[in-house]
Amino acid sequence: MTMSNARTIDLNGDVGEGFGPYAIGRDRELIPLLSSANIACGFHAGDPRTMRETVERCIEAGVAVGAHPGLPDRAGFGRRALALTAQEAADDLLYQLGALDAFVRAAGGRIRHVKLHGALYHMADRSEALAEAVAQAVRRFDPAIGLFVPPDGLLERAARAAGLKTAAEAFADRRYGADGRLLPRGSAGAVLERPEEAAAQALDIASRGVVRTAAGGTAEVRAGTLCIHGDSPGAPEIAAAVRCALEREGWRIASPFAP
Amino acid sequence: MTMSNARTIDLNGDVGEGFGPYAIGRDRELIPLLSSANIACGFHAGDPRTMRETVERCIEAGVAVGAHPGLPDRAGFGRRALALTAQEAADDLLYQLGALDAFVRAAGGRIRHVKLHGALYHMADRSEALAEAVAQAVRRFDPAIGLFVPPDGLLERAARAAGLKTAAEAFADRRYGADGRLLPRGSAGAVLERPEEAAAQALDIASRGVVRTAAGGTAEVRAGTLCIHGDSPGAPEIAAAVRCALEREGWRIASPFAP
Amino acid sequence: MTMSNARTIDLNGDVGEGFGPYAIGRDRELIPLLSSANIACGFHAGDPRTMRETVERCIEAGVAVGAHPGLPDRAGFGRRALALTAQEAADDLLYQLGALDAFVRAAGGRIRHVKLHGALYHMADRSEALAEAVAQAVRRFDPAIGLFVPPDGLLERAARAAGLKTAAEAFADRRYGADGRLLPRGSAGAVLERPEEAAAQALDIASRGVVRTAAGGTAEVRAGTLCIHGDSPGAPEIAAAVRCALEREGWRIASPFAP
Amino acid sequence: MTMSNARTIDLNGDVGEGFGPYAIGRDRELIPLLSSANIACGFHAGDPRTMRETVERCIEAGVAVGAHPGLPDRAGFGRRALALTAQEAADDLLYQLGALDAFVRAAGGRIRHVKLHGALYHMADRSEALAEAVAQAVRRFDPAIGLFVPPDGLLERAARAAGLKTAAEAFADRRYGADGRLLPRGSAGAVLERPEEAAAQALDIASRGVVRTAAGGTAEVRAGTLCIHGDSPGAPEIAAAVRCALEREGWRIASPFAP
Repeated sequence: MTMSNARTIDLNGDVGEGFGPYAIGRDRELIPLLSSANIACGFHAGDPRTMRETVERCIEAGVAVGAHPGLPDRAGFGRRALALTAQEAADDLLYQLGALDAFVRAAGGRIRHVKLHGALYHMADRSEALAEAVAQAVRRFDPAIGLFVPPDGLLERAARAAGLKTAAEAFADRRYGADGRLLPRGSAGAVLERPEEAAAQALDIASRGVVRTAAGGTAEVRAGTLCIHGDSPGAPEIAAAVRCALEREGWRIASPFAP
Repeated sequence: MTMSNARTIDLNGDVGEGFGPYAIGRDRELIPLLSSANIACGFHAGDPRTMRETVERCIEAGVAVGAHPGLPDRAGFGRRALALTAQEAADDLLYQLGALDAFVRAAGGRIRHVKLHGALYHMADRSEALAEAVAQAVRRFDPAIGLFVPPDGLLERAARAAGLKTAAEAFADRRYGADGRLLPRGSAGAVLERPEEAAAQALDIASRGVVRTAAGGTAEVRAGTLCIHGDSPGAPEIAAAVRCALEREGWRIASPFAP
Repeated sequence: MTMSNARTIDLNGDVGEGFGPYAIGRDRELIPLLSSANIACGFHAGDPRTMRETVERCIEAGVAVGAHPGLPDRAGFGRRALALTAQEAADDLLYQLGALDAFVRAAGGRIRHVKLHGALYHMADRSEALAEAVAQAVRRFDPAIGLFVPPDGLLERAARAAGLKTAAEAFADRRYGADGRLLPRGSAGAVLERPEEAAAQALDIASRGVVRTAAGGTAEVRAGTLCIHGDSPGAPEIAAAVRCALEREGWRIASPFAP
Repeated sequence: MTMSNARTIDLNGDVGEGFGPYAIGRDRELIPLLSSANIACGFHAGDPRTMRETVERCIEAGVAVGAHPGLPDRAGFGRRALALTAQEAADDLLYQLGALDAFVRAAGGRIRHVKLHGALYHMADRSEALAEAVAQAVRRFDPAIGLFVPPDGLLERAARAAGLKTAAEAFADRRYGADGRLLPRGSAGAVLERPEEAAAQALDIASRGVVRTAAGGTAEVRAGTLCIHGDSPGAPEIAAAVRCALEREGWRIASPFAP
């Protein structure tokens, strides 16, 4: 992870996850509050029109544009593990990166980072072959692109081995367990819905590298980028609270990879 | 259309039109006989794996790589007209161009041309709005890319107006009517299945700009690139016969846009 | 059109048009206000889970279940005309009818009617071949199923020729032109957004077979079923106002085809 | 498993696995050699047109029609495990059963059996929740339908518990290991390509309930139905050899579930 100085942190969110007639999330409100936007690329969500509009919105707002590639499973929103091979993952990734890049270049921008979506994010962090395939595909596409990764996992290791910049990711709006891992999405209390809770957790992570766990203890959580889930109904309010709390404490909110 | 000299002509074919477990065409045999390959981009046909493999095969064979974008209709193979808007056509085109480009760049190549597929090819030649949207999308993506177009139609005009290079396309293996247009695909005699017939027609077009029509007369047909349909069972034999006949008469077979 | 008596009219709405993670419409509120529900079948919208849940909701509410089959174009929500053949339309229709029927039978119900969606609805009313293919496919599937049709068009004629029951459809929440046809969806004033306007138009149609047109005159509109568009944000409020106005005037709201 | 007498066995094959412009397998030649045909239902493969044509072909040939439902993954041909829930599996299954049933009923037939495809077949045999969801979905759809199952697994148990008829399935054209399980598809010698080998194995299974294993020993294999893989290039030759060998030894080839 490469932060330009000790008092800079990134705020990222998943956006552009609509499809055809369908919308998800409150992108217009959320985007200006982020420093990095992860844009769906048409596999788990997103489509050409949504990608174009979202890219333009991000560039207008001065938010760093990133790719948010996922599994080819719209019906499952990319959240169901799929037993694809490393080669298939690399091919699907390259396809999505290229597709997004066309809109980014047409709008005068550049892809700054990649954040894998859903099940692919977790699968790639648990399989050396997948992690390497992902890292190599990103590197081949553009070695200047950085990768958002779970801290201390296989994906971070593979990305570094491939010479990619990385930013460890933590979650402002999700509860952690004593092992420093997220509570499963479905379990009680897994999601922090009150903006001030998320803001407090964001500050804890940024300032001290810890979170208060579900059990009431603390766990270490290292982060160069903090995620706000774009599909939670209160995402803009959470992002605003997090941003405000961090800035009040002197943090600069900025992409780790944009110039 | 821009040919490097009067004795050069291009031979193009549609390739990479498989999908998942399915293959179509005899790409391995056909590709080395072409000078320009039009590679399906995952909408009407093709998928990430097929695209990667096809791109690599073309680059290895020294064949100019082009995009063959189509309508989002796999079940209909992009052959059924779809009433999309000009904006939708532009967005779908940019998406497909970018996706293919990722594989081309990863393989060390560049996209040299675009040839629209199936119903999109015909729709764009009959609608000013679509023709302009297509030309502008290609130009925004990369103004060095050339466009294969039906001669004297709206698409050629729009492409030139956008400052794009063009190559008028004729068909070696399809029968023309007295009006200089192709017989409809389903009608009797519409397809030239014997390689020597296709070779003779290719020579007629290249040397004299004419074809023998279904009714026995002649019609003028201007062409900078000759198409061999990759999905006809005898495509490699037809391509070999056409190539041989042209070379025997002193024609150089080369992409109009590759250096 | 077959109404059980002169004072009965049907209120229909399109429901189950979500997909995967996406929702559209306020089905839970709308369904109990309808007498006939048109359920998307997984082509233009809908998916197996949504279909099951929607079918169960309708049966629980005592609302007649109908199929709402569309074109195979999720990205365009089935609203873009697609040049499919009559045979393709029949095959796609049978597939969708069967898929929905599995959920309906599993829930102890029966499909009572079919209403084509979007572009397919209009295409089938303008092409004799499509109209016949649709009517024959419904008849082969189950001759007891009724068809919702535009009044006096090719679809109504084909359905009757096939021996199917029909119900002419009018729209409570859309503005008509002087020719008795709907204003195009995009044009100004095409949608009646105020519930009381829709209610007044519904009463005019039911009682006197007329509507007030955009130009201020009147046009004749015959209807056995009145449509409320499920995807307009205020659909439940409109349906409630329409229902209330009709019932206040002594109309019984009921499916024309359910026992 | 229910065979009408000790000297009857079933020969099943997967058919109708084309899609849009694509064909797979030599269905026309294979179908008349089978007693049970498993027809793809539009998720992993197949489409409405292919389903209609395949159903008609089976009924004309007097072959029992079965459903061959798969995972919603065309690109992976349903061979990649997908982490769907039991409810999702049941919903997807019901959808596919209904869709196929529409064509079967329109052709005057009935679905006699269900055989899960690819990864779904294996997943359902290893998860109690999936096995039960599948069995219950089939039972709700039509309790007279039989299920083809791996012998002695969770799927057979769940099907029996649900009151469904079952037929244990063995493979004529695949090599078994010492544990009585199939060698993995990719491994050397996993596929018996010579028709006489498959015929000999079919006879061994039918007559004595054993196979010769890869290591040269024998393993017990119980079967009421023998599978010929429709997508191997020599499927019709294998089916003919198997059928001939069985009939020569006095076996009657017939569906266990058709009257």
